[in-house]
Amino acid sequence: MKLKIIALSMLVSFAGVADEGMWQPHQLPELEAVLKSKGLAIEASSIANLTAFPMNAVISLGGCTASFVSASGLAVTNHHCAFNSIAHNSTPENNILKNGFLAKTLEQELPAAPGSKMWLTENVSNVTRQIQQELTPQLRGKARFDEIEQVRKQIVAECEATPGYRCEVYSFHGGLEYYLMKQMEIRDVRLVHAPALSVGNFGGDIDNWMWPRHTGDYSFFRAYVGKDGKPADFSAENVPFVPPSFLKVSAKGVQENDFVMVLGYPGRTSRYDLAEDVRNKFNQRLPQEKAYREQTIALIEKHAPAGSDSRMKYESNLAGLANYAKNFDGMIAGYQQGNLQQRKDEFYAELQRWIKADPARKVKYQPVFKEMELIIKTDIAQQDREMVLSYFANVQLFRTARRLYRLSVEQQKPDEERERGFQVRDEDRQKSALKRMSRSYDPAVDLELALHFLQKYHALPAQQHIATFDQYFGLGETFDEAAVRAKLESIYKASTLSDEIERLAWLGKTPDDFKNSQDPAIQFAVTMFADDMKLEDEEKEQLGYLSQVLPKVMDAIIQYNKSLSKPVYADANSTLRVTYGTVQGYQPRDGVYNTPFTTIGGLKAKITKEEPFDAPLVQQEAIAKADFAGYLHPQLNTLPVNFLSNVDTTGGNSGSPTLNGQAELVGLLFDGVVEGLLGDVDYDVKLNRSIHLDSRYMLWQMEKVDGATNLVKEMTVIR
Amino acid sequence: MKLKIIALSMLVSFAGVADEGMWQPHQLPELEAVLKSKGLAIEASSIANLTAFPMNAVISLGGCTASFVSASGLAVTNHHCAFNSIAHNSTPENNILKNGFLAKTLEQELPAAPGSKMWLTENVSNVTRQIQQELTPQLRGKARFDEIEQVRKQIVAECEATPGYRCEVYSFHGGLEYYLMKQMEIRDVRLVHAPALSVGNFGGDIDNWMWPRHTGDYSFFRAYVGKDGKPADFSAENVPFVPPSFLKVSAKGVQENDFVMVLGYPGRTSRYDLAEDVRNKFNQRLPQEKAYREQTIALIEKHAPAGSDSRMKYESNLAGLANYAKNFDGMIAGYQQGNLQQRKDEFYAELQRWIKADPARKVKYQPVFKEMELIIKTDIAQQDREMVLSYFANVQLFRTARRLYRLSVEQQKPDEERERGFQVRDEDRQKSALKRMSRSYDPAVDLELALHFLQKYHALPAQQHIATFDQYFGLGETFDEAAVRAKLESIYKASTLSDEIERLAWLGKTPDDFKNSQDPAIQFAVTMFADDMKLEDEEKEQLGYLSQVLPKVMDAIIQYNKSLSKPVYADANSTLRVTYGTVQGYQPRDGVYNTPFTTIGGLKAKITKEEPFDAPLVQQEAIAKADFAGYLHPQLNTLPVNFLSNVDTTGGNSGSPTLNGQAELVGLLFDGVVEGLLGDVDYDVKLNRSIHLDSRYMLWQMEKVDGATNLVKEMTVIR
Repeated sequence: MKLKIIALSMLVSFAGVADEGMWQPHQLPELEAVLKSKGLAIEASSIANLTAFPMNAVISLGGCTASFVSASGLAVTNHHCAFNSIAHNSTPENNILKNGFLAKTLEQELPAAPGSKMWLTENVSNVTRQIQQELTPQLRGKARFDEIEQVRKQIVAECEATPGYRCEVYSFHGGLEYYLMKQMEIRDVRLVHAPALSVGNFGGDIDNWMWPRHTGDYSFFRAYVGKDGKPADFSAENVPFVPPSFLKVSAKGVQENDFVMVLGYPGRTSRYDLAEDVRNKFNQRLPQEKAYREQTIALIEKHAPAGSDSRMKYESNLAGLANYAKNFDGMIAGYQQGNLQQRKDEFYAELQRWIKADPARKVKYQPVFKEMELIIKTDIAQQDREMVLSYFANVQLFRTARRLYRLSVEQQKPDEERERGFQVRDEDRQKSALKRMSRSYDPAVDLELALHFLQKYHALPAQQHIATFDQYFGLGETFDEAAVRAKLESIYKASTLSDEIERLAWLGKTPDDFKNSQDPAIQFAVTMFADDMKLEDEEKEQLGYLSQVLPKVMDAIIQYNKSLSKPVYADANSTLRVTYGTVQGYQPRDGVYNTPFTTIGGLKAKITKEEPFDAPLVQQEAIAKADFAGYLHPQLNTLPVNFLSNVDTTGGNSGSPTLNGQAELVGLLFDGVVEGLLGDVDYDVKLNRSIHLDSRYMLWQMEKVDGATNLVKEMTVIR
Repeated sequence: MKLKIIALSMLVSFAGVADEGMWQPHQLPELEAVLKSKGLAIEASSIANLTAFPMNAVISLGGCTASFVSASGLAVTNHHCAFNSIAHNSTPENNILKNGFLAKTLEQELPAAPGSKMWLTENVSNVTRQIQQELTPQLRGKARFDEIEQVRKQIVAECEATPGYRCEVYSFHGGLEYYLMKQMEIRDVRLVHAPALSVGNFGGDIDNWMWPRHTGDYSFFRAYVGKDGKPADFSAENVPFVPPSFLKVSAKGVQENDFVMVLGYPGRTSRYDLAEDVRNKFNQRLPQEKAYREQTIALIEKHAPAGSDSRMKYESNLAGLANYAKNFDGMIAGYQQGNLQQRKDEFYAELQRWIKADPARKVKYQPVFKEMELIIKTDIAQQDREMVLSYFANVQLFRTARRLYRLSVEQQKPDEERERGFQVRDEDRQKSALKRMSRSYDPAVDLELALHFLQKYHALPAQQHIATFDQYFGLGETFDEAAVRAKLESIYKASTLSDEIERLAWLGKTPDDFKNSQDPAIQFAVTMFADDMKLEDEEKEQLGYLSQVLPKVMDAIIQYNKSLSKPVYADANSTLRVTYGTVQGYQPRDGVYNTPFTTIGGLKAKITKEEPFDAPLVQQEAIAKADFAGYLHPQLNTLPVNFLSNVDTTGGNSGSPTLNGQAELVGLLFDGVVEGLLGDVDYDVKLNRSIHLDSRYMLWQMEKVDGATNLVKEMTVIR
């Protein structure tokens, strides 16, 4: 499955382009000729308009994308994007996660998981000048960072003065441009329909990132608003939201070589990383991150044995860790087998030659690259420590204590001066996270993870140690595992933060309350605070420095690419993008070609009695009946299930509508192939393939298997 | 790798045909039209003539096929067919198995492994009438079996009166026809050239049966004869054999859809098995055989740990066991996923309807099928016991004792009355086997295998036990493992058969010598003899019965197929056959297409430092130089390595020349794909694919990597 990305990205990234691109909607008119030649039947300019069809049918779920498919707020997304909401409503007696769910009436619809929201982008405005107006060359380091943060917060606060809206300033091209996104925030989201797990997640982890694929990765939500049509908290009085437009669903689908485009919210790419960054990433950082994730998985599996209550709490975490470990593995393999590094090296060598060839460019850009290299060097030198500290920072007991104390400290300041993430607008999200911990936390497992990363921390060179930290955990010259374990056991035993009520009771308390607490986890947060702030300030100093250098680096890259007539698009940053391409297969390795469609026959051949291939009996019976009329692929003469295209997508695009040239929904983007995982760093025209659910399979399953005729009727199906 | 089959097959087998066939050469003129339409450029009748080009360039190695490629007896076959001869000449100081071998002159050529021979088929004659002339309907059971055996032996003895020839009578269509094959037997075979193991066996067990494949599976032998041109034992005086013809080697190779044909000695198929036979085979027999093989592998791996001297002795055995276990696995999976059983059931239901539709057919065939079903039932009832006993019979200490005693008993009779396999003509082979044991036997491992299968035997129902056997091993009601182990330990300790000299000293001794021996293994053979003979007589009774019924069953199947205008060819039986088809890929599963060629780029991508992907540095350097001129695939514009075709082959075909329409050698058949393993029972036009070494890769490797320019010059290469 594609990565559901949660964090908004403060992007640090950087160059080589081909037949690719995650385009900002306003760029599309420039691409009109190529889009038309590929098969776009509507005007390119209409896609550029965020407040018109089809763009205003596309919504963000935060980490996933969805789209409206009826005039009554019905929205379709991936099953894995609705997973938490389905699981949340599941009980041992009524296991809708396993069996699927269908609301035949509005009354039967279920509230989505707490915190579920939909964001509909209504306006995008370029705020680069506002952000940059005070940024003199003399304003450096943390001061520069603070200035940018302050203006960002101001702009956001002004924008959010309209109730029911969420605003965010996004940096593009590493700070060369800033855009303000204004999104309507729908807070009452309800679950309408999901197929059985063994349809929606058919193939599970085994097939994840893989082709051939046979996953029915779709689910339906409905957006609700107050009677006044404005966003409102959940209420029985609420009414379905009337979206500004919705997509028609095609029962005709696509064929090989057909034009397709995907509209959605891709999370993060780093296509412009400098050569040294890339070298470090694949040789040092990713292998280390993969190892840490695999160690975490092993510890959880050992201390939360399969079938235990504890394991239940970690299932979602484990799935995420495994997903990333597999992702990293694919990326590292792609890097080792391909010539990415060579091409990156060549690109930057060419760029340097281009800069040197012109005196003006030499003056303008040469020092910038020197500075950038220094930044990268500094980053790499700190990398091991940062990684260990960040993995320790994910240990839930200590993370929670730090979060609570930081919240308390920030709450002493006026809202506009608080750190982003700790403002009034963030309090709901913070509270949800504190509550959610109860469902994903077992002190015994948490302790083992703490112990493991303390040992990794201890192995760092002495000069990278933090005295306060060593002192708190009683770390000496050699790592005395028994003593550290005893220390941790006493902390976990004495702390009350594991208890949800005790934990939430800390919200609203003063910093002094924390300082006076005997809770050892709280004491840890208080004790570490000065050092934490020092580290954060150092990071801000570095980021401020970067914000002065990186835009110039990106400017050089853009100018150089333009000189080669290469298209220039910004790295993905969780904002609305358009990507287009065609339905096509690929050669994953010598002697093998992955064909662009899978079919119901292939799904049938995979069925076993074991998860994740245990297709429901009702589906098996429907397959045996072979009544696929109306949903046949004309050449293959059978029901298609999934298909491949070369559209340029990444995590966050999950659930995105895949449209044909008439902007009809022909599928849902839900994954990429393992051979193309390097795509986040480097789009490879031969290997970059996205995996889509075929609308014909979805409609057939809804109509012939799950009896979701009410929804099929509600949508506008093109037959 | 394809199975190297050793045993000659006394065939028990049975229809449904398509675009397939392992044709007897005399059948080819009938196929002229289709062969011409597919691309055969020479006359089909010329292939029917065993004493003319190209058929008389094709030779059997016994379990493998080879072909002459020069006027001086140079013959090419697979690396895995020459494996024993390469290993035999390998020493720790001069590890030619690992490093490869090249004789630059005749003097440098090395004797092949003891017992290595080449058989050149010179004549095939239909001896059905001779065999059947005394077979009255009243001659039944063992009497019928003995009569057939007696006539076979007579025919063979007459034929072998010419010195230097080996003759064999083969049954076709389950005894409907018999053919006498007269083969020149070349006894002085020498190793000329083999690439490094990591070329010749690149991919090893991991890639075995797999596509994509990148194996350089070739090696060269040379046939030597006495100065008089007649077969002779090894002697420095011998001279290279001048073959009646030889194949030219193409450097142009083939492309997708090109016509190819394979000439060789396929071992055994069972395409005409009755439906019940098939059901039993895939549901009972193969899963049990797979389990026994896997248990054997596990025991050997445990008691002959990796790296030990003992393990060295079992490597070849382990490879064979694993190869079969993987083969069985593929066959069982193919059976479970496909509809073979359904089609078999339908075929036999149709056949029964066809029989019933005509009164004459009804009278002729209906009782026959009743009898056949009874035979199958009886076979299945005895199957478990037979399997356990046959696995125990493979325990080397006891097998050797039985073999020695049987030899002594048979030697008391006139040669023509002795059992086949124990005649004067077999004595060399028997002696070789007794010698070979030293290289593949460790008493400690052998004992564990004996113990394991004794336990399996003990678990059989009481009425299936053999009293003498139970008594000898002291088996009681419950299996007392410690006691049986102690008994075995005393036997292995006391027996001297583990010693090669002691073992060979038994040759030529009288049955009384055996009876008087205190060697417990010899005592076992003597004690069991009466029971062994009783079991053998029961089997002969059953085989005699079968020889009366099966030809009629096959006659019905052939007549029915002819009524449907379906081609009829006999199951493979280790005799010379021709199969043809085209170069083509296949769809191994939904969403994936295996393309017909692999290339040097794919090989390069697989290279690691670990066996079996540790391509030699000298090859890696040559790949880096990319000097493929003269050997390029014109469309792919690179060096092809292996290719796929739909020719119909099986174990025994390994090493067979793959020819183009001009009968030029374009490759060597060396394997089949795992998805087509069911082909031995059922040719599937969609999945039955053979894997060939591409002649271009072989020539490039010989010329640019191994410097085998003397051989390239000796061959006639078409450029």
